[in-house]
Amino acid sequence: MYYPEPIAKLIDAFTHLPGIGVKTAGRLAFHVLRMKEEDVLDFAKALVNVKRNLHFCTVCCNITDVDPCRICRDKGRDESVICVVQESKDLVAMERTKDFNGQYHVLHGAISPMEGVGPEEIRIAELLNRLSDEKVKELILATNPNIEGEATAMYLSRLVKPFGIKVTRIAHGLPVGGDLEYADEVTLSKALEGRREI
Amino acid sequence: MYYPEPIAKLIDAFTHLPGIGVKTAGRLAFHVLRMKEEDVLDFAKALVNVKRNLHFCTVCCNITDVDPCRICRDKGRDESVICVVQESKDLVAMERTKDFNGQYHVLHGAISPMEGVGPEEIRIAELLNRLSDEKVKELILATNPNIEGEATAMYLSRLVKPFGIKVTRIAHGLPVGGDLEYADEVTLSKALEGRREI
Repeated sequence: MYYPEPIAKLIDAFTHLPGIGVKTAGRLAFHVLRMKEEDVLDFAKALVNVKRNLHFCTVCCNITDVDPCRICRDKGRDESVICVVQESKDLVAMERTKDFNGQYHVLHGAISPMEGVGPEEIRIAELLNRLSDEKVKELILATNPNIEGEATAMYLSRLVKPFGIKVTRIAHGLPVGGDLEYADEVTLSKALEGRREI
Repeated sequence: MYYPEPIAKLIDAFTHLPGIGVKTAGRLAFHVLRMKEEDVLDFAKALVNVKRNLHFCTVCCNITDVDPCRICRDKGRDESVICVVQESKDLVAMERTKDFNGQYHVLHGAISPMEGVGPEEIRIAELLNRLSDEKVKELILATNPNIEGEATAMYLSRLVKPFGIKVTRIAHGLPVGGDLEYADEVTLSKALEGRREI
């Protein structure tokens, strides 16, 4: 132990964050040492507040500081469409498009037998509860385009169809600004499969 | 603003750290959300403690929670040799070798006319104060092997020689485990220049 205890503790705290090793943690801790005291206090407060003042929305399971969350209580949004995403971050990505004006449901994960995550571990029961009233006409499955996301989408579509609700999946294809040359085979064949008349 | 305020604030706090952009900050903030409350509290405390309980040692200018620092008050260490380093991190790197048993002096920077850092901005005055008593026999300049570090070493050696103190510079050469093929020309010519009989 070469560092004085306070800095050693902070380095240790930083290494517990994802993607931050000992060297980066040291760099960050020394940066904190040079920060203004009020900024450090704000940082510390922000950390504690996130833990203390954020909860899950009882309707859509998104993280929120008010319950129901701002999207769920927004009367201007279309209640007949629910877009299902894996994480709160995905919801934010969808919101950024400004193209969707319905409601969301955040699963907080995806079905992954490899990692021992079954349908009970993610917020599927809460989703089914929401579908039992008659308002919902369409469920957009916007889980990630990878194995776990596809498996979750497939599982949900089979589960929800008996409710007589239209179930859709966001399109697979080439990303805008991408390059055909560098597209992988699966994406390209999905893009071909999903071709539309123009 | 799509995130609830507490998490938006934490993301913002993370982006103020070096090398952390908005995406990484988001990932870190969501990780904090999933951490145990006690761990988050410890993290917040560690942040505040670093700022409140760490000071500069009045002797060697290293960061410390006690004054003089543990190295300066250690009677088992050789007071006749001072190793000059740029940053506290460099001191830790030196300590890790377990090959040096003298004292240190931390400059907290290097002379860099490009960035407007002159000799007054770094802890050179404090170093000269320490040299005025007769104990010090050797000054080892362990500033970084780059332009700023070399300039600082050169400046210090000229400044200190009139005191009649031996001034040495750590060796330049090939890093152990390195590959001659990939060594740059300057390092290689320094290695050649510093060759020793075996």
